[in-house]
Amino acid sequence: MDTIQTDHYPIFFDNTIAELISFIKRGNYSRFFILTDEHTSIYCFPLIKKEVDEIDNYDLIEINAGEESKNIDFCIGIWKMLIDFGADRKSLLINLGGGVITDMGGFAASTYKRGIDFVHMPTTLLSQVDASVGGKTGIDVDSVKNIIGTFAQPKAVFIEYDFLKTLSPRQRLSGLAEMLKHGLILDAAYWADLKNSDLSLPSAGQIHASVVLKNKVVTEDPTEQNIRKSLNFGHTIGHAVETWSLMNDNNPLTHGEAIALGMICESYLAHKKTGLSAEELTEISEVIMKLYPKYRLKPSAYEAMYGYMLKDKKNLDGKVNCTLLTKIGQFNIDNVCTQPELFEALDYYVGLN
Amino acid sequence: MDTIQTDHYPIFFDNTIAELISFIKRGNYSRFFILTDEHTSIYCFPLIKKEVDEIDNYDLIEINAGEESKNIDFCIGIWKMLIDFGADRKSLLINLGGGVITDMGGFAASTYKRGIDFVHMPTTLLSQVDASVGGKTGIDVDSVKNIIGTFAQPKAVFIEYDFLKTLSPRQRLSGLAEMLKHGLILDAAYWADLKNSDLSLPSAGQIHASVVLKNKVVTEDPTEQNIRKSLNFGHTIGHAVETWSLMNDNNPLTHGEAIALGMICESYLAHKKTGLSAEELTEISEVIMKLYPKYRLKPSAYEAMYGYMLKDKKNLDGKVNCTLLTKIGQFNIDNVCTQPELFEALDYYVGLN
Ligand SMILES: NC(=O)c1ccc[n+]([C@@H]2O[C@H](COP(=O)([O-])OP(=O)(O)OC[C@H]3O[C@@H](n4cnc5c(N)ncnc54)[C@H](O)[C@@H]3O)[C@@H](O)[C@H]2O)c1
Ligand SMILES: NC(=O)c1ccc[n+]([C@@H]2O[C@H](COP(=O)([O-])OP(=O)(O)OC[C@H]3O[C@@H](n4cnc5c(N)ncnc54)[C@H](O)[C@@H]3O)[C@@H](O)[C@H]2O)c1
Ligand SMILES: [Zn+2]
Ligand SMILES: [Zn+2]
Repeated sequence: MDTIQTDHYPIFFDNTIAELISFIKRGNYSRFFILTDEHTSIYCFPLIKKEVDEIDNYDLIEINAGEESKNIDFCIGIWKMLIDFGADRKSLLINLGGGVITDMGGFAASTYKRGIDFVHMPTTLLSQVDASVGGKTGIDVDSVKNIIGTFAQPKAVFIEYDFLKTLSPRQRLSGLAEMLKHGLILDAAYWADLKNSDLSLPSAGQIHASVVLKNKVVTEDPTEQNIRKSLNFGHTIGHAVETWSLMNDNNPLTHGEAIALGMICESYLAHKKTGLSAEELTEISEVIMKLYPKYRLKPSAYEAMYGYMLKDKKNLDGKVNCTLLTKIGQFNIDNVCTQPELFEALDYYVGLN
Repeated sequence: MDTIQTDHYPIFFDNTIAELISFIKRGNYSRFFILTDEHTSIYCFPLIKKEVDEIDNYDLIEINAGEESKNIDFCIGIWKMLIDFGADRKSLLINLGGGVITDMGGFAASTYKRGIDFVHMPTTLLSQVDASVGGKTGIDVDSVKNIIGTFAQPKAVFIEYDFLKTLSPRQRLSGLAEMLKHGLILDAAYWADLKNSDLSLPSAGQIHASVVLKNKVVTEDPTEQNIRKSLNFGHTIGHAVETWSLMNDNNPLTHGEAIALGMICESYLAHKKTGLSAEELTEISEVIMKLYPKYRLKPSAYEAMYGYMLKDKKNLDGKVNCTLLTKIGQFNIDNVCTQPELFEALDYYVGLN
């Protein structure tokens, strides 16, 4: 698979471990650190251990797994480890894990001594096709998601397909939602390819295609003034449902499950407001409903979800903004949606089988 | 006094309050926040209160005074206040205070929602001539100074001479050390002007001259690859003495007092290593000793101080680097100094009257 050369850094897909090792050697780093969580230290680190042991001069930093760890307390823990290990300005941080590790590791590195080099080796489908590309870092404070962060680019990204083998089916589906999104907003042919594939594990080529699409968008609009907003498709409603679920469900939705639901609702809004045809709305709903379990969305929760939408980073002045499709493969940003419209969209999802 | 137009932002010296108000109005901010410490809320905020009250739509965030507050816990406090007050991406943070407020406020703003606008209104001499210019933000973690930070530029800086009236003589002397430094490294005529002035309160023109010099250096070399290192003159030894004093003295040295001492020691090194004449060494020592009280430097502390030099952010590979003068107004970076040389330089200070 072709290496993608972004504005700032390369994204490798082949021989990623050899590429990583040669990157470290070329960089003349005084030493390096590998950030993992309790799962990736078991499932992923062994795949690279032999090679990095040969370079030596590194330390492991491991944190607990899960979104609960993506907060300022764990981030302080990472900073303190770097201080204790004597990390200097010529040190490198390697983020080996899912989006929690790449988001928090990127933030920790971009602020340690006003910024040391870091690279991502994403190990979940979600982080491979989404979190590791685009230069957004972030942590949660007071349970507010990604409220603190920086724009900071890794020096390289290494996307190793083999890591995905140990990923649970549910985690795979979570990343798949972002791939479907890339097709729906940007590339009808890619959407058609996905919907006709066995998606229990997307192919390496499909992952590559998704990264190409995401990279194109973030390169054109790094700070989200216009076309980067396309990536918010499904996320206005999806984030609100995700937050509600995290606060109320014993077994909360994954990010991708919530976004899948959000894409159905926002496709409904697109049908009402931006000309998405009834046939395409039905097609999108059917593809997603076949892949993802139906979520029991409670109308009694609508008000609270609407409250989360209003608080969203993306929204200003008490108005809820959605990115909507005009047809499959084309989008339209900054559509203000009213509370009745949003509730109707949630009702549409509830009515599906 | 002329407004300085830097690469990124203007630095105002005249009508600063009116300029601040017009800046806020032009910016179309959804709301703004004023960060103060317990002293600047008493001594400085009243000078701008009437004018900002007229715009309305702002909140005050006050923290404890002093370097002890410049840490991650207070920073989290600021982030949480911004969250609680509902600060959005179109909010503005105004940092009204000394270097602690401008460093920490700059960091908090540059990471809140991946960066909101901030401006500095520095109220100490040190922050006017040094901390508020150059785009370095920072906080301390685990007592390690400025270990976490970003490079982030304010949208404007407002330097109001009137704030200095309430500053203690000792705080004035602290800022003066950086002004003397600017002359010594960059501008012999400015040094001559300073040494012939009554320096109990430098003039507005002298402050302006210092800001012009500092801005020139940081604009040419924002990330400290070469000439920005000139600003480290006096700081290799000075920082180490400052750290030792903070840990051991009941009434520790101010930053400027430590840097003044450091400039004497490093001028001695310059005389030994980079050709500074005996006459200029004597001149520098005499000017500084007349202004600053003699510090009782203990030879028993030299080892510990040397340890701090080795740990300094600026130093790599177990070597201590100094910026030294070749003559007054000219410098030379990256001079490796050995432990015996550094101890001899400290001895030189001890031997002065
Ligand atoms: N920066 C961005 O642009 C961006 C974009 C999308 C999402 N995100 C962030 O990404 C995070 C979600 O990412 P995620 O879903 O990867 O979360 P995650 O990092 O929590 O990973 C999910 C789970 O999979 C485990 N895991 C990781 N790799 C594994 C492997 N190879 N085998 C077995 N288990 C493995 C993890 O330990 C964790 O338990 C969220 O915090 C979200 O905000 C960021
Ligand atoms: N970012 C940079 O490039 C840079 C450069 C130099 C120093 N610094 C940082 O600046 C900090 C030191 O700055 P500082 O000396 O201004 O410290 P400071 O902010 O603690 O101020 C010193 C004292 O003066 C008080 N004060 C402030 N303004 C006053 C006024 N107008 N009247 C009366 N009292 C007033 C403060 O409350 C405090 O007690 C250090 O943390 C240092 O690391 C940063
Ligand atoms: Zn997403
Ligand atoms: Zn200084």
